[in-house]
Amino acid sequence: MNIDGIPTRTLRADPERRGIDIIDQSRLPLALHWVRVGSLEAAAHAIRGMQVRGAPLIGATAAYGLAIALADDASDERVEEAVVVLGATRPTAVNLHWALARMRRLLAPLVPARRAAAAWIEAAAIAEEDVAQNAAIGRHGLGLLRRLRPRHAGVLNVMTHCNAGWLATVDHGTALSPIYAAHDEGLPVHVWVSETRPRNQGLLTAWELAQHGVPHTVIADNAAGILLRDGRIDAVIVGADRIAANGDVANKVGTYLKALACADNDIPFYVAAPSSTLDFACPDGSAIPIEERDGDELRQLRGIAPDGSPSALQQLVSNAAVANPAFDVTPARLVTAIVTERGVCPASRAGLLALYPENRHDN
Amino acid sequence: MNIDGIPTRTLRADPERRGIDIIDQSRLPLALHWVRVGSLEAAAHAIRGMQVRGAPLIGATAAYGLAIALADDASDERVEEAVVVLGATRPTAVNLHWALARMRRLLAPLVPARRAAAAWIEAAAIAEEDVAQNAAIGRHGLGLLRRLRPRHAGVLNVMTHCNAGWLATVDHGTALSPIYAAHDEGLPVHVWVSETRPRNQGLLTAWELAQHGVPHTVIADNAAGILLRDGRIDAVIVGADRIAANGDVANKVGTYLKALACADNDIPFYVAAPSSTLDFACPDGSAIPIEERDGDELRQLRGIAPDGSPSALQQLVSNAAVANPAFDVTPARLVTAIVTERGVCPASRAGLLALYPENRHDN
Repeated sequence: MNIDGIPTRTLRADPERRGIDIIDQSRLPLALHWVRVGSLEAAAHAIRGMQVRGAPLIGATAAYGLAIALADDASDERVEEAVVVLGATRPTAVNLHWALARMRRLLAPLVPARRAAAAWIEAAAIAEEDVAQNAAIGRHGLGLLRRLRPRHAGVLNVMTHCNAGWLATVDHGTALSPIYAAHDEGLPVHVWVSETRPRNQGLLTAWELAQHGVPHTVIADNAAGILLRDGRIDAVIVGADRIAANGDVANKVGTYLKALACADNDIPFYVAAPSSTLDFACPDGSAIPIEERDGDELRQLRGIAPDGSPSALQQLVSNAAVANPAFDVTPARLVTAIVTERGVCPASRAGLLALYPENRHDN
Repeated sequence: MNIDGIPTRTLRADPERRGIDIIDQSRLPLALHWVRVGSLEAAAHAIRGMQVRGAPLIGATAAYGLAIALADDASDERVEEAVVVLGATRPTAVNLHWALARMRRLLAPLVPARRAAAAWIEAAAIAEEDVAQNAAIGRHGLGLLRRLRPRHAGVLNVMTHCNAGWLATVDHGTALSPIYAAHDEGLPVHVWVSETRPRNQGLLTAWELAQHGVPHTVIADNAAGILLRDGRIDAVIVGADRIAANGDVANKVGTYLKALACADNDIPFYVAAPSSTLDFACPDGSAIPIEERDGDELRQLRGIAPDGSPSALQQLVSNAAVANPAFDVTPARLVTAIVTERGVCPASRAGLLALYPENRHDN
């Protein structure tokens, strides 16, 4: 996609200097900073600290992180160490573990001297596949959007949650890919962006959409219910961090509430994700680990400080106990359809296996 | 209730000096400031600007505001002017209109010379009734809480939304009144407090609960779904801004989403409100006006500014369109029971009329 009209991706590989450049998304949308990741530790830090976030981009970054880790030592022990360090950064998005498992499978039979170069090539393949898959999600999702009948003045009103745009991937995005495709095709589309407390990734979505010229409106997460109930939304589309074999979907905390409100008001609720997000080894949502993040993310509640002093309010709120689960699970029964790079399917084991028959043997 | 151990109410009348003192809740919990309201304009400003908030406290403040307005002129025209000015401040909470209608009924037959004194007495009666009614809600709600079987270690886990505590009333609170009653009786209770974006009234609830020593945990609004789904909550209890004749409930935006998650997980969802919140003239929730507040409330999204600069982020977000509905409607079918000063009833016309048979003639 573009930043200020200049085409870019979220991740730029520099194999000759054994590093990658990433956008520090923890500083967006206030500041656009590219950061060099040149060590295993820096890659793990970038994922854990959410400099990169979004399940597909986490996967691609982990793959490159493993390639970077093998620069001086590509022994079996080093490969295992890097897989463990990177795999421990975040528990919920399965793309991380998928990418590391794929890299390990490739590297295991190779002699150490050949591993570093092979790892760079494989990481690049993972990144390229992500781009192509997300473009395909855009085409399949566009088909769904075209079939919706806009309720208001011919404009399609789509709500999303968190950021599942190009910032969450190597390019194009997952949930936003069909929206960009619709916009580029001239289909009038307006996006309702929920701010996504506590980390406000909705601002990333608003920033992305503004860069691409897509009309949008930011709302508090709490407002999703009344908007859906009042018939102001034609569809909700979100990304995913892990989709279990039965179609249950782990995604950013708050997703489940939107899915409930869609079901209560007969509004389609779509989930868009590439195959790297599918976990056929996970029977259902109850088996998906849900990350509990630092309560300080929630304590950064500076909104109501009348004197604009964040520190005083932070100090005050830091006395309160805080719980901060980062994801929730939306049961398959609330998901209208899943959009992947292969097409659109019902959120069920049968639906997913129809698109991915090679997984029939799992579980 | 108490502030730093000293008993107080949210509103102190000073009829001799023709004014009232209120806590400026827009500055809580960072700062505790009492503000003198000595004119009709100041009363309207206090309600509109949310220095006072919470349906019952809005009603009591409006009643006193009318008394204050009649200090120098108690003509029919002045009464009407004051009713119009105060009635226009906020559209959703019916307690405002209920209090003004009650004051007007009292004042109409009186000669102007007697009106100001009578208005002060009636406003005080409204405030005293609020205190007594909320205490009764506490007793009736305590009966409901006692019948719940705590799932975790004998501690009752109750979730609430926004602030329906003593700050939202003249004293005791509505939704929190049963919680205070339980705590005072030695029933172990822990409160899950959702922050309630965009104005973060959850911080008022956390502050209140801390003042009273009630254990609590603050969560992002988005986290309500996973907590309810994971069996960590025994009941949800909220206040109301207006309850329609059929039991539909208007309350702070986000309430509907919690009610949906309760229904999806067989968890009781209770609404606590005094009779001044009941609107038998309103057939159902679709007839309740929903206030749209200034988008700047939402733009105060300072959470992720890495350099701690609120102004930069505010400036950035101010370029985005924002929608900010302040309330939503929870359909009666999602409400397990309504708790009023007269007892507990199903959320239905029949249920409400069983407690309030004098309203059988309405509609």
